[in-house]
Amino acid sequence: MALTDAQQQELAEAKAARAETRRPTVPALEALLFEPIPLLDHGFIRVIDYMGDDSAVVQAARVSYGRGTRAVTEDRGLIRYLMRHWHSTPFEMCEIKFHVKLPIFVARQWIRHRMANVNEYSARYSIMDREFYIPAPEQLAAQSSSNRQGRGEVLEGDEAARVLHLLRQDAGTAYDHYAEMLNEDEAGAPLDPARQGLARELARMNLTLNTYTQWYWKIDLHNLMHFLRLRADAHAQYEIRVYAEAMLKVLEAWVPAVAEAFRDYRLGAVTLSAQMLEITRRLLAGEAVEQAGSGLSKREWRELMTVLGREG
Amino acid sequence: MALTDAQQQELAEAKAARAETRRPTVPALEALLFEPIPLLDHGFIRVIDYMGDDSAVVQAARVSYGRGTRAVTEDRGLIRYLMRHWHSTPFEMCEIKFHVKLPIFVARQWIRHRMANVNEYSARYSIMDREFYIPAPEQLAAQSSSNRQGRGEVLEGDEAARVLHLLRQDAGTAYDHYAEMLNEDEAGAPLDPARQGLARELARMNLTLNTYTQWYWKIDLHNLMHFLRLRADAHAQYEIRVYAEAMLKVLEAWVPAVAEAFRDYRLGAVTLSAQMLEITRRLLAGEAVEQAGSGLSKREWRELMTVLGREG
Amino acid sequence: MALTDAQQQELAEAKAARAETRRPTVPALEALLFEPIPLLDHGFIRVIDYMGDDSAVVQAARVSYGRGTRAVTEDRGLIRYLMRHWHSTPFEMCEIKFHVKLPIFVARQWIRHRMANVNEYSARYSIMDREFYIPAPEQLAAQSSSNRQGRGEVLEGDEAARVLHLLRQDAGTAYDHYAEMLNEDEAGAPLDPARQGLARELARMNLTLNTYTQWYWKIDLHNLMHFLRLRADAHAQYEIRVYAEAMLKVLEAWVPAVAEAFRDYRLGAVTLSAQMLEITRRLLAGEAVEQAGSGLSKREWRELMTVLGREG
Amino acid sequence: MALTDAQQQELAEAKAARAETRRPTVPALEALLFEPIPLLDHGFIRVIDYMGDDSAVVQAARVSYGRGTRAVTEDRGLIRYLMRHWHSTPFEMCEIKFHVKLPIFVARQWIRHRMANVNEYSARYSIMDREFYIPAPEQLAAQSSSNRQGRGEVLEGDEAARVLHLLRQDAGTAYDHYAEMLNEDEAGAPLDPARQGLARELARMNLTLNTYTQWYWKIDLHNLMHFLRLRADAHAQYEIRVYAEAMLKVLEAWVPAVAEAFRDYRLGAVTLSAQMLEITRRLLAGEAVEQAGSGLSKREWRELMTVLGREG
Repeated sequence: MALTDAQQQELAEAKAARAETRRPTVPALEALLFEPIPLLDHGFIRVIDYMGDDSAVVQAARVSYGRGTRAVTEDRGLIRYLMRHWHSTPFEMCEIKFHVKLPIFVARQWIRHRMANVNEYSARYSIMDREFYIPAPEQLAAQSSSNRQGRGEVLEGDEAARVLHLLRQDAGTAYDHYAEMLNEDEAGAPLDPARQGLARELARMNLTLNTYTQWYWKIDLHNLMHFLRLRADAHAQYEIRVYAEAMLKVLEAWVPAVAEAFRDYRLGAVTLSAQMLEITRRLLAGEAVEQAGSGLSKREWRELMTVLGREG
Repeated sequence: MALTDAQQQELAEAKAARAETRRPTVPALEALLFEPIPLLDHGFIRVIDYMGDDSAVVQAARVSYGRGTRAVTEDRGLIRYLMRHWHSTPFEMCEIKFHVKLPIFVARQWIRHRMANVNEYSARYSIMDREFYIPAPEQLAAQSSSNRQGRGEVLEGDEAARVLHLLRQDAGTAYDHYAEMLNEDEAGAPLDPARQGLARELARMNLTLNTYTQWYWKIDLHNLMHFLRLRADAHAQYEIRVYAEAMLKVLEAWVPAVAEAFRDYRLGAVTLSAQMLEITRRLLAGEAVEQAGSGLSKREWRELMTVLGREG
Repeated sequence: MALTDAQQQELAEAKAARAETRRPTVPALEALLFEPIPLLDHGFIRVIDYMGDDSAVVQAARVSYGRGTRAVTEDRGLIRYLMRHWHSTPFEMCEIKFHVKLPIFVARQWIRHRMANVNEYSARYSIMDREFYIPAPEQLAAQSSSNRQGRGEVLEGDEAARVLHLLRQDAGTAYDHYAEMLNEDEAGAPLDPARQGLARELARMNLTLNTYTQWYWKIDLHNLMHFLRLRADAHAQYEIRVYAEAMLKVLEAWVPAVAEAFRDYRLGAVTLSAQMLEITRRLLAGEAVEQAGSGLSKREWRELMTVLGREG
Repeated sequence: MALTDAQQQELAEAKAARAETRRPTVPALEALLFEPIPLLDHGFIRVIDYMGDDSAVVQAARVSYGRGTRAVTEDRGLIRYLMRHWHSTPFEMCEIKFHVKLPIFVARQWIRHRMANVNEYSARYSIMDREFYIPAPEQLAAQSSSNRQGRGEVLEGDEAARVLHLLRQDAGTAYDHYAEMLNEDEAGAPLDPARQGLARELARMNLTLNTYTQWYWKIDLHNLMHFLRLRADAHAQYEIRVYAEAMLKVLEAWVPAVAEAFRDYRLGAVTLSAQMLEITRRLLAGEAVEQAGSGLSKREWRELMTVLGREG
């Protein structure tokens, strides 16, 4: 993982800067500002700016509910109440901005979250860096046989070695030919003065999807939590999950009361369908309930038994 | 214009607070923070928080365009370039939060701008204040005879006096009956212990549309400029335009280079249709062009002549 | 509830029209098209247009998951799977457009759902109708003593009569003065030729919040279900809930398989927090758990016991 | 360009289907329904469904402006008025759904338009087709020397041949290795029973950015025109512009009056900044104005002279 020289210098200047502000300020997040948190083999996230804190959520809620919130005397309790009852607008009052470096195939998943602001490095204007994501050996999983979008066992031996070899070779070859077509090296210096070089907006099509890109990504706290709920989940692809998990740590530094409520009422929570709830009630009443005749499919039944801690 | 006591105390605390931050900080905007700017008879805006500055726009653009922006060596020039060519995402990297007090009929127009975050005072939970917008006499305009949504001459004499009397009387009566139905005074104290009082969510329907409400409103710089372009325009209703104009001043304190480009390329700019452009070219070539045969309607022709400074 | 004459004529023409189309068509919804469904005292919804059906959801999902969905051979099963696992984009592929007539205070709640398209009748351009919402006697509820945004017992006797009298009187007086200020009757005819009349954009501020307005409202199926989940809920205010419930019936005519899954996995479902789930598991294991020491507040404990059918 | 067999069959069925509807129907668009319009070497767009027509825009505007629009007696005139004055909400009342097949690097640009609904073929679930975009020789442009994101002269001779060779070779090799890593052929049949095969969500990272993907894309008319304004523009990259231009033809079949107004007031229109307008007025008044002293940069001056037809 490497920032460019220009980014390194910008980072040093930003970290050295100090200003006085009357805005809400979170020392634990200030301590993290600008510093890259390394992820995967060349990726990172770093916090560039933020607005608001736990109190800003409370302040917005109190504007909405006015004198009506007198009864809830304590901030943490109010935040938990808001989270439990799916109030979203008070959480929209906080905002955070990240600089993210990530493989293109991860970026393609990520961008589907539309409620965010993005400035991505443009391969129409600029030359991409020669950096590719190559999975660590323990991430080289086989296709799951039971789950169409999941991973199964880790590949081993020759098959694993062959995969790593192909990934490295193809990404490298594609990049070298990209530079040849551009007739420029990574720093933009011309290679062969006799050639013109293909337009950047065309040459980029030769790169592989594990090439790293980067962007600034700004999002409000409500939508960030929505993103984290989907992407920090065990069903999310490992390569995006590591980004979500790093952001979850940032969340804890930034808005600790919100982060706690988020863990309790979102990440650790389960939703029971009408049928699942009915079965749970019958089980609690001491009734013996079987999958057959329960109204649940076998798959849903298994899911419910897992949730209720009744496996095996 | 009045903050509640609780808000006054919050304001005093917020203004007294000082923290050190490494985030981009704008002294000219810090000086405005929290302080209400009075508008209309009881309204205000005040800046509650902000993220980013002119440099944050430039920084985001340079991430997007990478080494491609080396050529544009100067921040002001880059900002003007971005504005001129309708780049929107770099401006989305700044964010601002206002506390706004405004009449309900203005709030109904304002809320149509969907790309913002809002927490409004809730009349389901809380009791509304006894404050109404009554126009200043010089704003008591007649319906325009030429423009279906505009204002014509100012009303005078008995007609003006009668309008002001009716507005004051009906708002006051409706509010007094609201309180009577609630069986509560403005502070929430019960009026008649023998009565139950109507639910707040129902009683509110008796209030008139000039009753003041308030909200927290958070928006990114790109969408703020879109709002200002529509609402600081001469065709916007006066009662929302005063809010937009006050925000325009805030814009100048916050992001002076963006504000300058916004005035040149948006507020002061004009759009010529294909037909209007063709006529302008012919006029420049010395040709005599008349409305008849120009392909423009009379109305469009008048608009074009006004734009080109050729009236009369 | 009344359409204007012009709307009546448009309705008759629209209902009489027949065209051949190759688009997905839903006979049960065609039967409902254009016809107002009366709500409250003067409100209605009516379906104006729609795009897609149950199969359009399936078709979009099969594009996403391609050969991966071969295993799920049946449409209903796939729709239930998508709903259960919170897939949202296939549901965004259907769209519906309503014409809605509703009191302004309801419109103010409704408009907070930003992910929709709206064209509202403009009181800047046009004269409002003389129609107000007056609650039916059985809806005249007192403020709930336990729930700050809820309703308690129904008001009776003199207090109820007084409330109805005030609501009728104030809305009527405010409207009559609105017309007087406009110097126009409901049909736009001038009242007193010696007066100019106040601009419409100003006069409207004298109206009360129970005045009816109307709009066209267009939304995709995913966001419609989000709206219905919040507004067809028992905690929603009665005056908006009746609209949501009528739309729920439309949903059943339009996309019956989606509607069934929505009832099972959203409307009838419950979310258990991490702590609630832990307690449920302990109860299922036969453990005696009390609120004290459970980690839940009294309020959450009560909620959990209700959900699990263990009240009393 | 090829649909899969399953898509071909679906197309045939959809085209054969006929239903009666009371919804607004556009025969010229019905004639285009489902049929792929070929673009680039393997791409296409095809219209899958639509809602509304020119009249739906007018109908929504008349709801908004009510009796206020009586004066505008003619639909075409009203549509031009709405377009000229940047009214957006009536255009949001129409919706269209496309099936699009496009290279991934084009999809990455396209997806930045957030105000649309998308279901993309998922390479986590399914196997990608062996299809790549290879530019036609006349599109093999050099990097522009004057415009950082533009194209210059067309490459010729050996350099062009070498580029085409590399693009073909690298895409093919990367795909073959993708299949080898999956241990599956294009149809999903296992290659080597002794191997497990890498998970699809991982293997896809080896594909190049000119691999074709496909999606369903649904958007309202207002946002479609925003997309077309940016992407049918001469500055847009050729590979996305061909899609926009094909959609522009669809627009003309679907909503001819809107399409005409769009050409006049958007595509063919120009925006003059405050300074440009001032100079235009001085030129019209017969004044000699030079770039030096005009307040415009050399670049803006050139742009203005081009716009005004005063080059050279």
